[in-house]
Amino acid sequence: MKSRAAIALAPGKPLELVDIDVEGPKAGEVLVRIVATSVCHTDAYTLSGADPEGVFPAVLGHEGAGIVEAVGPGVTSLAVGDHVIPLYTAECGKCKFCLSGKTNLCGAVRATQGKGLMPDGTTRFSLDGKPLYHYMGTSTFSEYTVLPEVSLARVSKEAPLDKICLLGCGVTTGIGAVINTAKVTPGSTVAVFGLGAIGLAVIQGAQMVKAARIIAIDVNPDKFELARQFGATDFVNPKDHSAPIQQVIVDMTDGGVDYSFECIGNVNVMRSALECCHKGWGESIIIGVAGAGQEISTRPFQLVTGRVWRGSAFGGVKGRSQLPGYVERYMNGEIKIDEFITHDMPFDQINQAFDLLHEGKSIRTVLHY
Amino acid sequence: MKSRAAIALAPGKPLELVDIDVEGPKAGEVLVRIVATSVCHTDAYTLSGADPEGVFPAVLGHEGAGIVEAVGPGVTSLAVGDHVIPLYTAECGKCKFCLSGKTNLCGAVRATQGKGLMPDGTTRFSLDGKPLYHYMGTSTFSEYTVLPEVSLARVSKEAPLDKICLLGCGVTTGIGAVINTAKVTPGSTVAVFGLGAIGLAVIQGAQMVKAARIIAIDVNPDKFELARQFGATDFVNPKDHSAPIQQVIVDMTDGGVDYSFECIGNVNVMRSALECCHKGWGESIIIGVAGAGQEISTRPFQLVTGRVWRGSAFGGVKGRSQLPGYVERYMNGEIKIDEFITHDMPFDQINQAFDLLHEGKSIRTVLHY
Repeated sequence: MKSRAAIALAPGKPLELVDIDVEGPKAGEVLVRIVATSVCHTDAYTLSGADPEGVFPAVLGHEGAGIVEAVGPGVTSLAVGDHVIPLYTAECGKCKFCLSGKTNLCGAVRATQGKGLMPDGTTRFSLDGKPLYHYMGTSTFSEYTVLPEVSLARVSKEAPLDKICLLGCGVTTGIGAVINTAKVTPGSTVAVFGLGAIGLAVIQGAQMVKAARIIAIDVNPDKFELARQFGATDFVNPKDHSAPIQQVIVDMTDGGVDYSFECIGNVNVMRSALECCHKGWGESIIIGVAGAGQEISTRPFQLVTGRVWRGSAFGGVKGRSQLPGYVERYMNGEIKIDEFITHDMPFDQINQAFDLLHEGKSIRTVLHY
Repeated sequence: MKSRAAIALAPGKPLELVDIDVEGPKAGEVLVRIVATSVCHTDAYTLSGADPEGVFPAVLGHEGAGIVEAVGPGVTSLAVGDHVIPLYTAECGKCKFCLSGKTNLCGAVRATQGKGLMPDGTTRFSLDGKPLYHYMGTSTFSEYTVLPEVSLARVSKEAPLDKICLLGCGVTTGIGAVINTAKVTPGSTVAVFGLGAIGLAVIQGAQMVKAARIIAIDVNPDKFELARQFGATDFVNPKDHSAPIQQVIVDMTDGGVDYSFECIGNVNVMRSALECCHKGWGESIIIGVAGAGQEISTRPFQLVTGRVWRGSAFGGVKGRSQLPGYVERYMNGEIKIDEFITHDMPFDQINQAFDLLHEGKSIRTVLHY
């Protein structure tokens, strides 16, 4: 079948709006009609060519929501008409990771997903007879996309797809990192580095678990007002200080924060985030994705004196079993999503959505097919 | 009063055996007669001159045990004749660290301790009228030493002081890192880098908590037999492999270990220890003390994919409240200490004990006053 799509033909170029060919679902696969998708920094990172695992030409996009159009042989947990959120972190429920009870990093489709392929090693997308690669197992920049069954969370049909698409990455990642990874406790002091969608979602998560003090840090003070609306109590622009930002935070918190979150992908900020933690117990969570080959570093003394360095992927959330609950909490008013959406556009303006992201003018732009 | 002592007059030189002058305890202080002391790598590190916080001339030593000889005004928790283990990590029970319930890093005497002084900013040691610095708040290389009350754990009088002196650092640090810091669970796979006293104590701790597989790693295969006696199940000499040691460990454990411990102080090994942990949940604990200014580094991806980087000081053990229990467990046969003692010597052979340590020929030498 034909499908509208915005494809990445080569690194560093705008997406190309074309009609591509989409093959039907094979065994264990599902065809989904994407209703809405957003654009995330990870898409921009891969599109830039900086991602060493990026393959071209490809159908990018990983933050979307849609409706099941067809299921392949052997698919039992999903049916035509189901509302779904694509998962770049699958949940098979059977691998050693899923069975461990300790992580959401399912191993079922990871090897092929990382290569831009379906689990059988082929692709379902093509243009003029030439294959197009998948991306993050999701490829939401095609109206019709094919995913493994284990890469789809079935969610309530009551929920607006053009809002809950944000649960496919940013909002869930931020809230989950607070609840699942850091396990922030009530009354805690929290520092959040970077006030994009992830950082704002971390702030929301910290407020949900009743952190007492939430320090929002960004070099763009235009972000502070929205951070305040999500629950931040303190605002720091590193440009306003000559001292290293970790020292500024330590000084304003009587020794450091209980938890910090790096939501940028800058390895120097990751170090600052660790070192602004309180001696004895402070924990720092890396969420941002750093550039290829970049490394974090610190003196080991920082850890020996009680700080803990962690990371979080998709907020530690198991998509199939836990994302439906996130949708319910959105519907109940417990999780804010609408406030992240600064722009709505028709799908064919997708390159403009990337421009807004690069310029720091949007938090999230939702694209409607 | 006069006291036999081995003093460090200058960095890089052997200790000098002399009779020094020791002042009586002031308010909140206790005079202790050390009965036995051991020599640890941290003493050697400071003596070498590589420790940027090392001050000279000083009375080193931090792994000892003795008997209270006199108490200063206001001391209520200790009395003459009590058997005690000096603590380089004090426990005041009142500071924000002690009250947090999250760390053993008491802040009560830390500032002055780091400068080689008693809490009032002076020293109790002198030679020919010139002051000698304290060390780690303990200075067990003087037969008579003065400590803050909060830096002494009172222990059973039944326990042999020339054995339980090892609970003042190495044995407790290793076992505590397993139990308190890593919280190793039964059935786990554990990797231990470095088979000195700390590494062997980690192995012992891992066996105590019923780890299923304990991988002992050292470039000196002479250490393997003792490691086996403490409970190690696998033995790896990195020199036997051309691949990076983290890859060797990952391959032999189907993806990595659940917990790893760095017991050397080598920042490159710290990286290997982290990276040999299993994706999704592996935790690496830094115990070794790295050289001044050295840094650890890794790709943040290692943490984002679920590994956790921690450190441990004195095994997370609160000395005054928990060390008496360690002594009891030694007396009950639950904790091995005797097996760490490869040499016993009179105190005046202390420089020979350092030689044995440097040559890798001893695990612990106990010096008897």
